[in-house]
Amino acid sequence: MAQQDRAIRTRRLILEAAASVFDDRGYDRATIAEVLERAGVTKGALYFHFASKEQLALAVLDEHVLDIAVEPQQIKLQEFVDVTQVLAYRLRSDPIQRGAARLAVEQGSNHLDRKRSMISWADFVEGLLIEAKGRGEVLESVAVRETAELYVGAFAGMQMMSQALANRADLNRRLTVFHQHTLPSIAVPAVLARLDLDPERGAALDAVLKAGLLADATH
Amino acid sequence: MAQQDRAIRTRRLILEAAASVFDDRGYDRATIAEVLERAGVTKGALYFHFASKEQLALAVLDEHVLDIAVEPQQIKLQEFVDVTQVLAYRLRSDPIQRGAARLAVEQGSNHLDRKRSMISWADFVEGLLIEAKGRGEVLESVAVRETAELYVGAFAGMQMMSQALANRADLNRRLTVFHQHTLPSIAVPAVLARLDLDPERGAALDAVLKAGLLADATH
Repeated sequence: MAQQDRAIRTRRLILEAAASVFDDRGYDRATIAEVLERAGVTKGALYFHFASKEQLALAVLDEHVLDIAVEPQQIKLQEFVDVTQVLAYRLRSDPIQRGAARLAVEQGSNHLDRKRSMISWADFVEGLLIEAKGRGEVLESVAVRETAELYVGAFAGMQMMSQALANRADLNRRLTVFHQHTLPSIAVPAVLARLDLDPERGAALDAVLKAGLLADATH
Repeated sequence: MAQQDRAIRTRRLILEAAASVFDDRGYDRATIAEVLERAGVTKGALYFHFASKEQLALAVLDEHVLDIAVEPQQIKLQEFVDVTQVLAYRLRSDPIQRGAARLAVEQGSNHLDRKRSMISWADFVEGLLIEAKGRGEVLESVAVRETAELYVGAFAGMQMMSQALANRADLNRRLTVFHQHTLPSIAVPAVLARLDLDPERGAALDAVLKAGLLADATH
C-alpha cells in the first residue's frame, strides 16, 4: 500500500513538472529532459508511468477536468458558477491547470487532439446544466448543449485574454462579467436572484477545497 | 500613380502570404523564405516593405482590424452584431484574418505583443457600444468597456473552439448563440426585438461588402 502511495505521488510529481514545462514552452518545444529535471526523477520512473511526450500531454489534459470538484450547493447553477470561478482562480498558479490551458489553446504543429479537452469540459458543463434544468432552475428555452459549448469556448478565450493582459489576475472578475451577461438568459428569475457571482468566490472555495483534501489525507 | 498602385498591391500580396504562413506554422516556425516563396516576390521587394518577421506579424495584426468595416445600419447594435458575424465568416477563408487569429491566440515563446490586437479590438467594439448607448439602444446598467472586453475574449475562444471542432464551419452559429445569451442584458427591449441574429448574415454581408469594393475599384 505504501508502495502504491509512492507510485501515485511520483506520477503526480511528473505530471505537474510536465504541465509546467508545457505552460512555459508549449508542446512543440517541451522536452522530456526538462520534465525529468523539474520533477527530479529518473528516466526509468518517468517511462514507467508515461510512454511519450504525447502521453504526458494527454494525461495533463485528462487530469485538469478531474481536478475540479466543488462543494455541493442547494442551487445546482451555483455549482456551475463555482466550477468556473475555482478554475479561474487556479489558473493563476496551479501547474496542471496552466499547462492544460496552453495545450488546449495551442493550434500547434503537433498531432495532439485538442478537441479532447474541449469536449470533456463541454460534457461536464452540460451534465451540470441538465441537472439544474431537471430541478427547474434553468429556463425552458435553453438548449443545454449549445449553452455548455458557449461556456467552454468563451472561457477559453477569456482566460487567454486575461493571461495576455494581466497574467490572469483579473480572470475571476472577467468571469463575473460573463455570468452577469449570460445567466439572465439561463436561470429562472427566482434562482438568478439567489446566485452568488462574487469574483472573490473562487479564492474562498479553493481554500475550502484544499482544507478538505488536507483533512482527508490526515485521516 | 500606377507605380504606387503596384507597390500597394505587392505589399498586400506579401502580407497575405505572411499571414497564411503564420496560420499554418505559427510565429516561431514561420520563415521569411516561405513567405517569399508563397508571395512569389524577391527578397528586396519584401524588405522594402517589412524589415523583419516581427514587422510582418505586427502588420498582419494591424491589418485585420482595419479590414472589417460593415454597412451602416439604422440600429447601431446591428452593426456591432454584423462586425462579429462578418469576421466569423471571413475566418473560414481570409488569410489575413486566419493568420492574425493564430498570432493573437498563441502564447508563443516570441516577444510579439499579443495585447496589441486584443486592445485594438476592444477599443473598436467599445466605440460601437458607446455610440449605441448614446442613441439609447443600450441598457443604462451596461459598463461598455467591460462588455467590449467580454466580447473580444469570448470571441477569441469561440473561434478557437470552432476551429478545433469544425475548421470554423460552425463559428457563425456559435456566435448567434452567444448573441442570444448576451444581448438581452445589453440591448433595450425595443432594440433587441429588431436585431437580426441570423448566422447566415455573415456570408450575406461579406458578399455585399466584396461587391462594393469591386465597384469602387472599377470606377
